Amino acid sequence: MYRTVNCGELRLSHVGQEVILSGWVQATREFGSLTFVDLRDRYGITQLVFNIEDDRELCEKARELGREYVIKASGLVRERSNKNPNRPTGDVEMEVKSLAILNKSKVPPFTIEDESDGGEDLRMKYRYLDMRRNPVKDKIIFRSQVAFAVRKYLMDQNFIEIETPCLIKSTPEGARDFVVPSRMNPGQFYALPQSPQTFKQILMVAGFDRYFQIVKCFRDEDLRADRQPEFTQIDCEMAFVTRDQVLDVFEGLTRYVCKAVRDIDLPEFPRMSYDDAMRLYGSDKPDTRFEMTISDLTGNAQGHGFGVFDQAEVVLGINATGQAGEYSNKDINKLTDWVKRPQIGAKGLVYVKWNADGSIKSSVGKFYSDETLISWCEKMGAAKGDMLLILSGELDATRKQMGELRLEMGRRLDLIDPAVFKPLWVVDFPLMEWDPDSNRFHAMHHPFTAPKSEDIDKMLDGDHETMKKLRADAYDLVINGVEIGGGSIRIHDRALQEKNFKLLGFTEEESEKQFGFLMGAFEYGAPPHGGIAFGFDRFCAVMQGSVSIRDFIAFPKNNMGRDVMIDAPASIDAEQLEELGLNLNLE
Amino acid sequence: MYRTVNCGELRLSHVGQEVILSGWVQATREFGSLTFVDLRDRYGITQLVFNIEDDRELCEKARELGREYVIKASGLVRERSNKNPNRPTGDVEMEVKSLAILNKSKVPPFTIEDESDGGEDLRMKYRYLDMRRNPVKDKIIFRSQVAFAVRKYLMDQNFIEIETPCLIKSTPEGARDFVVPSRMNPGQFYALPQSPQTFKQILMVAGFDRYFQIVKCFRDEDLRADRQPEFTQIDCEMAFVTRDQVLDVFEGLTRYVCKAVRDIDLPEFPRMSYDDAMRLYGSDKPDTRFEMTISDLTGNAQGHGFGVFDQAEVVLGINATGQAGEYSNKDINKLTDWVKRPQIGAKGLVYVKWNADGSIKSSVGKFYSDETLISWCEKMGAAKGDMLLILSGELDATRKQMGELRLEMGRRLDLIDPAVFKPLWVVDFPLMEWDPDSNRFHAMHHPFTAPKSEDIDKMLDGDHETMKKLRADAYDLVINGVEIGGGSIRIHDRALQEKNFKLLGFTEEESEKQFGFLMGAFEYGAPPHGGIAFGFDRFCAVMQGSVSIRDFIAFPKNNMGRDVMIDAPASIDAEQLEELGLNLNLE
Repeated sequence: MYRTVNCGELRLSHVGQEVILSGWVQATREFGSLTFVDLRDRYGITQLVFNIEDDRELCEKARELGREYVIKASGLVRERSNKNPNRPTGDVEMEVKSLAILNKSKVPPFTIEDESDGGEDLRMKYRYLDMRRNPVKDKIIFRSQVAFAVRKYLMDQNFIEIETPCLIKSTPEGARDFVVPSRMNPGQFYALPQSPQTFKQILMVAGFDRYFQIVKCFRDEDLRADRQPEFTQIDCEMAFVTRDQVLDVFEGLTRYVCKAVRDIDLPEFPRMSYDDAMRLYGSDKPDTRFEMTISDLTGNAQGHGFGVFDQAEVVLGINATGQAGEYSNKDINKLTDWVKRPQIGAKGLVYVKWNADGSIKSSVGKFYSDETLISWCEKMGAAKGDMLLILSGELDATRKQMGELRLEMGRRLDLIDPAVFKPLWVVDFPLMEWDPDSNRFHAMHHPFTAPKSEDIDKMLDGDHETMKKLRADAYDLVINGVEIGGGSIRIHDRALQEKNFKLLGFTEEESEKQFGFLMGAFEYGAPPHGGIAFGFDRFCAVMQGSVSIRDFIAFPKNNMGRDVMIDAPASIDAEQLEELGLNLNLE
Repeated sequence: MYRTVNCGELRLSHVGQEVILSGWVQATREFGSLTFVDLRDRYGITQLVFNIEDDRELCEKARELGREYVIKASGLVRERSNKNPNRPTGDVEMEVKSLAILNKSKVPPFTIEDESDGGEDLRMKYRYLDMRRNPVKDKIIFRSQVAFAVRKYLMDQNFIEIETPCLIKSTPEGARDFVVPSRMNPGQFYALPQSPQTFKQILMVAGFDRYFQIVKCFRDEDLRADRQPEFTQIDCEMAFVTRDQVLDVFEGLTRYVCKAVRDIDLPEFPRMSYDDAMRLYGSDKPDTRFEMTISDLTGNAQGHGFGVFDQAEVVLGINATGQAGEYSNKDINKLTDWVKRPQIGAKGLVYVKWNADGSIKSSVGKFYSDETLISWCEKMGAAKGDMLLILSGELDATRKQMGELRLEMGRRLDLIDPAVFKPLWVVDFPLMEWDPDSNRFHAMHHPFTAPKSEDIDKMLDGDHETMKKLRADAYDLVINGVEIGGGSIRIHDRALQEKNFKLLGFTEEESEKQFGFLMGAFEYGAPPHGGIAFGFDRFCAVMQGSVSIRDFIAFPKNNMGRDVMIDAPASIDAEQLEELGLNLNLE
């Protein structure tokens, strides 16, 4: 028997009991004849005490314990004279009667404290030590609780969790697949799924009208910060549903989970069109925790002889409330540099300060009268003391730049309350995007997304310009400016699916080879259906107000796709390669 | 709105309500002016009725519906005059007011009935149609319920579900790995996990003292019947536990799940040593639903001049109760052929019939007196009318043959009640098996399994013969002759782990390269730990009394590892191969 209680559970009510504890040595300290050991496990920390006057040998053994030694201690629970109110077990301590060292530990390469002195690389290499730290441990436990709450809600709603295969077929459309050579079928490869999309649609054809799965997905992309080659989705699909029924179910899920794991009551989930999101927030994932929406000043700004604005497709502005007196010329210059960074890409920044004394100061003052500039302020709901920030250029680019500037100003003005959760649905996305590089359309979501029913006819016989305007029955869930998930009503008709593949530049042969099984299934009684997938890692992170997903993953990979703890990927035996019918072909 | 109710829920209490139903056309039939349509969905079947005298056009539309058409029907619930007591909805029908065809269906290639006329290959190719059949659908739903019950129990027991990575490192020991070429690390490969074994041990070192995961695992083995290249495990690990604590927790899990999903109260889980299992049942996964245990007749049978027995290492027998009068010479010859099949491999079969009239008949009657043969019967607890079946030869082989013969006789004598569940723990497995082919020891479980504590010293300095006798702190859960899961207390000490690798024929370099990260972790305070993994597919199958796991998997692969529905694996683009730094090397 290694323990009768854990290190987090002893209270005053246990005083006088003989107990056994096992755990890790967090710290030892001496105080006169006494030696104290903080013993830690997953559940907490309990103070052990040894007295050299009672048992010299035992106490000396305790004095030799190193950090992270694994020990087992038996003894008597007693009330502490010097209580620690910051620790749930802080009213008591164990007077140790016997002590066993279960395993020694080398000195850890970084401190096992909430604020560690270990850098990212070191922490990843010794992930088992990193995970002993509360901030990481708590996130991993939180993730487990979220997963269970998700399952509880969906099972209660009659969803069935169905495992779809990991060894499937490569479909070069979209992101790059990881492939798996098949030894039994030489020269052939499986692919790891980027998502269970086609399988969940097949399950709808099979009649399982409510499917879900918390499932690993794989994408062989060049990794940006906070991207992982393997990640987890909450993947769902429903048959015989309209869009609003899907949104209601997953609004319910989000609400339930936030309440269950964080005791947060989410506010309403407004539904905002993609067009409105782009127009007002310059983003399809608006952070609606603060206002500062974008105003269109094009009509007001053009025709006054300022060439930059006159030649721009749009002139857009936001109002930085109360900032007229806060931003010096130097500050404005710095902000201008910020918007001109390649990540933002603006050409310049125009400001209009409506000073508290009613005077106007602007970088474009020589082109516009004070009255005109005040009329801009008034149009945008600004008051004396406010400052307008204005960008101009091509519509889509300027909106995106303005969206970034809005977020930056929200942060600078401390308008973003990290304790607030603002979910919303963004709906009515474009069906397709024109890609000038490849000179063809791409599906904005994926090629299985249905157009809105009123757009189906236009799609079947529309021209290029019509294509651009088609709306998809697609939706994204956004919380605090982060896209948590997205989905759509799907095409369930073979002819429409074929048409869509054609518009997306698939040859008939390609679409048949890659997705023939799905289109074949559509011919045997496919019901109308739609679904959604949540990024599970991100969902967990957002609920904790965290920007990084990495610590919500027990064993994340680094930006080169490497697991530095186990040192993978690695070379394999020549024999393995030969069995797979492969040769290396390295330059 | 596609439906207000589903096809399984209408009852007499709904009579008079206007409802909407959607689903698949199971069957249509005409009866005078009436047309009946059985509408099916996941939840059941509801009868729709159309009357040509009420609405000719509507009724004619109904008459044209084909099998598996997807329709939506609105109408009035009314009481049936001709009730169907075999169907929960059989008291009512819908008088249809409007009908919409949501999707047509080609004629399915096999009947969507409980007993289908489709062969295995056809059913797999059209798996979405196969899954519409109740026997398959019910198993998939059952699997989902089992998974949830497992999670519920383990979460209530303070286990944390932690996802371990899918892209790990190849370890050529054991079964063959599936590998995944890394584009970003050319010439290097990930491997798909055969199990999360090392990661769950790392999690114990990390302090998560109760881990579980329902997780996909991968093995690139030549597929025998009922093996899948990807399969699912309930994978668990605990720290600071003894063997009996592990067994108690997972006996509790098994008991809870059987009660939750099948309302079955399992009997006691006896604990049987590996030695006893082999001695009494000739198997390490004994089916204890019937007795017919194996008796050792070696001492009784040798020394009477019958060379076959005299030269055998052992002579073993079972008693086929009441069969003396049932087995003719011809039957005995057939049974002899059965034990001589290569799958069993016996050289011959000896019988002793103790006839009801007290006379003895035996194939070895000329070597043994009737008194001797009766003494065998009495030793084995046989009575008049019983028949002994006797095999001889080398110990291990004869035990296994006898185990197979015992199962066969159990089936023939109808001693195996499919409604009965007999779980047991088999414990104290050998630590290592000598493999004469490779001239070295193999780990019976895996190289992380700890020897029983009393055997550690023997292991550290034992010789070859001692090695063979070492016992592992390992255990298997067996139900009805099927191994559901297995596990062990693990080694948590670097020196012992190194010793074990050495005994198993690893060079120091090999063990460091493959498992250095784990042995490194053992140096930073690894707690004592142990765990278990259940075969999830098999667990589901056994609870349903099913022998095959295939229908508990939504999308199984065939014996060539192929998914015939999506036609995977498949060739990939030359461009993909090049990006991965690979050439095909096919003969």
